[in-house]
Amino acid sequence: MKDSTGISMSVIRRLPRYYQYLTDLSNNGIERISSSELAEKMGLTASQIRQDFNCFGGFGLQGYGYNTAQLANALAGILGLDSDFSAILIGAGNLGKAVAAHLFSEQNGFRLIAVFDSDKKLEGKKVGKFSILHMDALEDFCKQNKPVTAVLCVPDNAAKEVALKLDSLGVKSFWNFSHFDISSILPNSRVENVHLKDSLMTLCFLIKSDMGKN
Amino acid sequence: MKDSTGISMSVIRRLPRYYQYLTDLSNNGIERISSSELAEKMGLTASQIRQDFNCFGGFGLQGYGYNTAQLANALAGILGLDSDFSAILIGAGNLGKAVAAHLFSEQNGFRLIAVFDSDKKLEGKKVGKFSILHMDALEDFCKQNKPVTAVLCVPDNAAKEVALKLDSLGVKSFWNFSHFDISSILPNSRVENVHLKDSLMTLCFLIKSDMGKN
Repeated sequence: MKDSTGISMSVIRRLPRYYQYLTDLSNNGIERISSSELAEKMGLTASQIRQDFNCFGGFGLQGYGYNTAQLANALAGILGLDSDFSAILIGAGNLGKAVAAHLFSEQNGFRLIAVFDSDKKLEGKKVGKFSILHMDALEDFCKQNKPVTAVLCVPDNAAKEVALKLDSLGVKSFWNFSHFDISSILPNSRVENVHLKDSLMTLCFLIKSDMGKN
Repeated sequence: MKDSTGISMSVIRRLPRYYQYLTDLSNNGIERISSSELAEKMGLTASQIRQDFNCFGGFGLQGYGYNTAQLANALAGILGLDSDFSAILIGAGNLGKAVAAHLFSEQNGFRLIAVFDSDKKLEGKKVGKFSILHMDALEDFCKQNKPVTAVLCVPDNAAKEVALKLDSLGVKSFWNFSHFDISSILPNSRVENVHLKDSLMTLCFLIKSDMGKN
């Protein structure tokens, strides 16, 4: 699968890891790193790293390696972390609260502008600096504020209806924590899924495999 | 990268998706599906699906396809969802509470047995049916109960110390929500990471790329 720029999703998915890794190195006073060192630390090959960076013009200097701060900065630009995409969060349960608190507290390309829930009892309660709005207010809010992205922290069985509603209101990208497959009903939307259950099942398999060895 | 059974991680990571997809089909009364239909719905190729299943002996019948309930059941067995791995959760903030509530409510191979936090003020408060224990009680608890897995919902800067402590107490697998790279200090542990920030950055890149097109 490729994105609109023709770069494969597997390369794109490595960019945040490179960015975070290089930022950590730079913050720890490490100014440069060779592609082979970077490869070893990240469990990749040096050739894969060079190929990945060549998708964006390449960054290393022969014999020098990479300047960590410069490369982190370049990756931030490629990822668009200096963007200011407006986002609304739907579903103010524990997961929604955690996502709001953890992820909109630093510069990461998005700016949270409202939190919604379908539970009338939650209306007006606070999530960080936001007063929870009822879903009845969604339509007017979207017409006025035109949010770019919606974060869906709703139950699986509510996700389809919420996604269709948001799409009709002009929201075309989703950070989806439900297991509902939004792409199946909105193939032209941008959907990034966080599938916690899949991750837990993967861990289960790995532990089971290890136990089979013993 | 391959797991201990010699199966590549990319195949392993598709197993939960197959399992969930086939379970949904079966629950919706769809008894059988061809590998080409399954491939189309999941954005894979039919040959990839056949290759994946061949790692486990293969399941389809020529001309019939797959029986959804039987295949879901076989995948549950392969994944080990009938296991009963004891798990403790460290970090009872919003994320920890969300993870506890969402993910230990159904059969998925794990059984949550305790919730810990380093904040004395949280001691004794409830997360679902669990009274939060203070980290001071971790050592005795692990010696008595020998948990298999720890779920780390702690801040990034606390993760290293907590992981080392747990490792010394015999915990060798981690479901890690922090951005600390546990594998770098505990290469023999099983670590499954949930990197929410990486996922958000990927979405940021995709939206930015789309906007560049217009």
